[in-house]
Amino acid sequence: MGGVGAQAACRGLSASGRPGRAGRVQTARMPHLHPRAAAQESVFARMSRLAAQRGAVNLGQGFPSAAPPEFLLGAARGALGRFDQYAPPAGLPALRDALGADLGVDGADVTVTCGATEALHLLTLALAGPGDEVLMLEPVFDVYLPQVALAGARGVTVPMTLDPARGWQFDLGALAAAVTPRTRALLLNSPFNPTGTVFTDAELAGIVALARQHDLWIVSDEVYDELYFGPRPTSLRSLAPERTFTVGSAGKRLEATGWRVGWIVAPPGQTPGVLGLRQVTSFSAPAPLQAAVAAALPAARESGFYAGLRETYGARMTRLAAGLRALGATVFEPRGTYFLTALHPTWTAEGLIDSGVAVIPGEAFYAQHAAPAGLTRWAFCKSDADLDVALARLSQADQTVRL
Amino acid sequence: MGGVGAQAACRGLSASGRPGRAGRVQTARMPHLHPRAAAQESVFARMSRLAAQRGAVNLGQGFPSAAPPEFLLGAARGALGRFDQYAPPAGLPALRDALGADLGVDGADVTVTCGATEALHLLTLALAGPGDEVLMLEPVFDVYLPQVALAGARGVTVPMTLDPARGWQFDLGALAAAVTPRTRALLLNSPFNPTGTVFTDAELAGIVALARQHDLWIVSDEVYDELYFGPRPTSLRSLAPERTFTVGSAGKRLEATGWRVGWIVAPPGQTPGVLGLRQVTSFSAPAPLQAAVAAALPAARESGFYAGLRETYGARMTRLAAGLRALGATVFEPRGTYFLTALHPTWTAEGLIDSGVAVIPGEAFYAQHAAPAGLTRWAFCKSDADLDVALARLSQADQTVRL
Repeated sequence: MGGVGAQAACRGLSASGRPGRAGRVQTARMPHLHPRAAAQESVFARMSRLAAQRGAVNLGQGFPSAAPPEFLLGAARGALGRFDQYAPPAGLPALRDALGADLGVDGADVTVTCGATEALHLLTLALAGPGDEVLMLEPVFDVYLPQVALAGARGVTVPMTLDPARGWQFDLGALAAAVTPRTRALLLNSPFNPTGTVFTDAELAGIVALARQHDLWIVSDEVYDELYFGPRPTSLRSLAPERTFTVGSAGKRLEATGWRVGWIVAPPGQTPGVLGLRQVTSFSAPAPLQAAVAAALPAARESGFYAGLRETYGARMTRLAAGLRALGATVFEPRGTYFLTALHPTWTAEGLIDSGVAVIPGEAFYAQHAAPAGLTRWAFCKSDADLDVALARLSQADQTVRL
Repeated sequence: MGGVGAQAACRGLSASGRPGRAGRVQTARMPHLHPRAAAQESVFARMSRLAAQRGAVNLGQGFPSAAPPEFLLGAARGALGRFDQYAPPAGLPALRDALGADLGVDGADVTVTCGATEALHLLTLALAGPGDEVLMLEPVFDVYLPQVALAGARGVTVPMTLDPARGWQFDLGALAAAVTPRTRALLLNSPFNPTGTVFTDAELAGIVALARQHDLWIVSDEVYDELYFGPRPTSLRSLAPERTFTVGSAGKRLEATGWRVGWIVAPPGQTPGVLGLRQVTSFSAPAPLQAAVAAALPAARESGFYAGLRETYGARMTRLAAGLRALGATVFEPRGTYFLTALHPTWTAEGLIDSGVAVIPGEAFYAQHAAPAGLTRWAFCKSDADLDVALARLSQADQTVRL
C-alpha cells in the first residue's frame, strides 16, 4: 500500500493546482488510487529485470531459453493477415475444437483467455466474493492471493511441509480442517509450482471427496500438465467433472510464455457465466496466436514434442540438481513443472544474483506462513549453456567465500 | 442473472452425487457461481455470431473488413521467434518508448494491456471500490458499467440528448449535477462510440474544471484518437495531465482489433499502482504483437497511414450516410470513430438482420435511461463492397415492404 501512503503524503504540498514537470506533478487536491492498487512488483518480473540489468543468468522466471518450435511459429506466420480481427470472447472455434480434442472435453466447455493468469483471475471472480473463502496450499503461486482479494474474497492457505529427507508433503487432514462454512472453492496446482509435487491418485480422490462433502468448486491450475518426470498427472477434471475448472496454458506447453493464450475448461453448463465476465476483463485473446495454437496442438501431439521436452528437461533437471548438490544444497527434484527447489544454509536470492545467477526466493511463495529458511526456486527450462554458466559462477563464488 | 437462477433451480435434482454424461451432469449438492458471473453475451459478439450464421453483412461489431497494413504484418512476422517469452508487465520497453514518442509522453507512464478493454478494467479497479461512484455519459459503451460493477463501485450515467435536427448534445450542467461526494472518477470517450461526438475544447475545459473542483480522476477512452473527420481531437491528458488516465488501442489504430494490444497512459507517478493490478489480471500482453506494434507506430505516422484511413473512412461514411438517408433514415454523421448512428421509425436490429444486414441496436448502449426509439449504430470500417451490398439489401427489403 506504499503507493497510496506516498500519494496521501503529497496532498496539499502545492497550491497551484497546475501540473509541474512530468514526474513532479503536484496539485492542491489530488484524488488517490483505491488501496487495492498497491505498487508491488511481481517477484518474477523483478528478478528478470535485475537479471537483465546485472547480466545474471536468469534461472528465476519460468520461461525457456529456446524459441518456440517451428511448427508453432510457422502457423503464426500463416495466421497473420487472416486472423487479425476480434476473436469471439470464448475463443476461435478452431482453437476450442483443438483443445476439446486434445483434452478429451467438449469444445463448448472451453474458454480461451489472455494467458493462464487471466483464466485464474476470471475464475476467482466467478466463484467467490465478499464473505467467501478460497482454500489453497502454501507455498503459493504469487498471483493466487491477490486475485482472490480482487474478487473481494479471502484466500486461506494450508502449508505443505518440507522434510529435508522426504521432500514436500501434502496433508489432506490439514486441508480438511481449514474448510469453513464460508469456503467456496479449492484452488490447486498440479504439477505444483514451486514444489514440483504431482498429487497421487489417492490424494486427488481425497481432495474430490472433501469438495463433494462441503459443496466446493475446484480450480485446478494444470499449466504444467505436459511437464512431468514420473507418471502422467491425473487431471482433477477426470475425477470431478461436475465441479472442476481446469486452467491450461499454450505458453507453458509450447514454449511461448509471452503469447498469452491460456484456457479454462469449465464443468458442463458453466461456461456462459465465465464468458459473461470474460467479455469484460479483456473481451478476447490474441486472434492470430490463437489460430497458431489451434494448428500447433495436434502437431505437438503427433510429433512427440511434449515427450521430447520431458526428456530434455529431465536431463537438465538432473544436471542442475547434481550441480547444486555438489555446492552443498539439499535439492528436491520435482515430479512435474520445470522448477526445482533447494535448501542451502547461506544462499539468498540477493546473494545469488551478486554471484551472477537469478533465482526466485522461497519467501516469494509464502504469505500466511513462514518460508523454510534458505529455500530457493530454480528454473531449469533454460539451455545447457545457461545452466553450466550458472553452476560455474556459483562454484566460483563458493570458492571465493572459502578462501 | 439467468445463469445463476437456472443453476439454483437444478440443485437437489439428482441424489447420485456422481456426474452423468457431459452436458447433463447434476449432483446432489452443487455450488453455484457468484452472481457477478451472469450469462450475458456481449451484443457485439452476438451480432457478429448472428451475422456469420445468417450470412448477413456485418456492419455491427467495429472491426475492419481489410487486413492490417503490411508494415504491421511484416513486423509481426519478424518478431516471431524473437519476442516469444513473457514481456514485462508494463510492456516491452521498445513499445513503451514508441508510445511515449507517438503520444508525447514519458514511456515510464505507459502500461501495455491486453487490449483497451483490459485497460479500462484495470482503471476501474484502480480508481473505484465499494461506496464509490464513477460518472459516465449515456449512450455508454457496453463494458463500462459491468467493469465498474466488478470493481464493487456504482456506475452513474448522464444522458446525452439526441436532437434530430442538431444531433447528439452534451450537457456539462447535467454532468456537474450528477457529481456526489462519492464520485471518484469521470469516464469519458472521445471520439465517442456510438455517438461520434468529439468534445470541443470548451467542453473539455468544463470537464477538467469539474474534475478539479471535485477532486476527481478522469479516464479518457481515446481508442479512436486517429479516426476523426473534423478538427483533430484534443486529448484530455493535455489539459489535466495530473489526473487523466488515457486509454488507447493498437487494434483500432492499426486495423488489427484481434491483436489485443492496448495501453494506459497514467498521470506521472501513478503507473506503479496500475502495474500492481496489471500483474494480477493477465500479467502481460502478447509479446510478439507488442514488438510489431512498436515497429509499426512510427511507420504509421511517417507513411501517413492514419490520414489515409480518415480519407477512406470519411468517404465510406458519406456513402453509407447517403444510402441510409435515401431509405428514409435520419443520420447523425460522426466527428470521429468509425460508426454512425441513425434513426428510422421502423428499423430494428432484429428486422435488419432478417434483411441481411447486421447492426448494433441503440438499446445496447443504454442501461439507466431510455434509448431513443429507432436508434441503430452502423460501422463503416467495412469495404465499399460490404457497404454496397448492405444498402442494396436494405433497398430490396424496403421495396418488398412497400409492395
